Amino acid sequence: MTVSPAVRSAWSGVSTTVGDLKSDRVRILLEQQILSGELPPGTLLPREPELCEALGVSRTVLRDAVRALVAKGLLTVRQGRGTMVAEPSDEAFATAMVALLSRSTVTVGDVMDARITVETMLVRLAAAAGTDADWAELERTERALIDAIGASDDAAAHAAHAAFHAGILHATHQPALELMLGPMNKVALLTGTTSVRRGAMEDWDLGAHRAILEALRLGDADAAEQAMREHFAGLERRPVYLGLLDQPFAQAYFGAP
Amino acid sequence: MTVSPAVRSAWSGVSTTVGDLKSDRVRILLEQQILSGELPPGTLLPREPELCEALGVSRTVLRDAVRALVAKGLLTVRQGRGTMVAEPSDEAFATAMVALLSRSTVTVGDVMDARITVETMLVRLAAAAGTDADWAELERTERALIDAIGASDDAAAHAAHAAFHAGILHATHQPALELMLGPMNKVALLTGTTSVRRGAMEDWDLGAHRAILEALRLGDADAAEQAMREHFAGLERRPVYLGLLDQPFAQAYFGAP
Repeated sequence: MTVSPAVRSAWSGVSTTVGDLKSDRVRILLEQQILSGELPPGTLLPREPELCEALGVSRTVLRDAVRALVAKGLLTVRQGRGTMVAEPSDEAFATAMVALLSRSTVTVGDVMDARITVETMLVRLAAAAGTDADWAELERTERALIDAIGASDDAAAHAAHAAFHAGILHATHQPALELMLGPMNKVALLTGTTSVRRGAMEDWDLGAHRAILEALRLGDADAAEQAMREHFAGLERRPVYLGLLDQPFAQAYFGAP
Repeated sequence: MTVSPAVRSAWSGVSTTVGDLKSDRVRILLEQQILSGELPPGTLLPREPELCEALGVSRTVLRDAVRALVAKGLLTVRQGRGTMVAEPSDEAFATAMVALLSRSTVTVGDVMDARITVETMLVRLAAAAGTDADWAELERTERALIDAIGASDDAAAHAAHAAFHAGILHATHQPALELMLGPMNKVALLTGTTSVRRGAMEDWDLGAHRAILEALRLGDADAAEQAMREHFAGLERRPVYLGLLDQPFAQAYFGAP
């Protein structure tokens, strides 16, 4: 995909506008062009010398701006292939959430409380808005979880478990909510991953997931909420979590002593 | 604040580890030291030549890593003062959320739906968990909103309005939830700001905020939820919102034609 004349025309003005550092001005311009869709995913930017000329800036200034946009997940640089507008992804958002929680004073228990609050809300919404296709998808992820446990494949079990909870979020049929809460779900699930990292056996509560799914199929919001609450209560009763709940999130996440 | 010997010792090993690009390895190491608290907010990093030597990398490699961490809000560079570990802030998280929504296909209406879902949940939790101190704070922000409207001070009115909704979130007394949903609240409120940017008068619904506050004071979750729903129903009935609801989020946010 090539760069439109309108985008190029905005480039030619950036080095002469006043205000921030030049590299910040270039970054802000490219960022806005990417977020507004003027520079769609997959667009290959011109090679460095040409781009420097189009923007009227030095290589150092351009590289500073590109580096910042790579860090934000908006550009990707591939050796030998050049700089490309990245495909949309929630990775930068999830990373920023981990940073926010890590640098705060919240504990693993606080994050667990947030997860309980959000997931009990979501399961009610899913019970009301979900379709047969959603429940079939949840059945598939539940089956994948059972198979992974049977095969002692921890990575596959974690993936299936995350997909089950993501499937409940999807069944709310609220696309903006799904974008904003999806990464929260992933981050919160990490408290589980943490216990595994430390060598504790993950004790997958298949009964709880089955109960949630059955309540959802019936469209019974109260029963679904109740099953979700029991799922979390079961989690919190495990010895491995009791030791974790009062730990600062960063400590549990980074495995610091 | 100075850098601990343990941190320095990890620095000395980074250039000889294998794997990613050198600048990525430096970035990952510094990022982990910042997130784990080994490098606390306010720490002044050594000057560039000293830091390059401690890490065993070139100036270009170091600058690449620093630029990426500045973009993530973890470092700040002040001309003449050097590079410092940034104070924790939710700005990078909120920016990443805007990027996520902008690059998706969600509409302003979808974001509004997410906000209704989340705020009706929050107001119920606040009714159950809030304290007199919380209600006094909400009274203050409501008074600030009234005063700002009286003084035709749009910026102050927006700040007070955002503080009112943030105050409800705070009254849930769930610190992790507050961190994760605070930026969502700010981003969602931007649909209001958008209408103002376009010159439409913001029609502050003081009655709705009063009704929410009164229900909260009584600890009446049902009445609080009902008042919140009426607040949003009132918003969505306004002509300016009717035109906005079907617009892609990016278009409304960036004011593209």
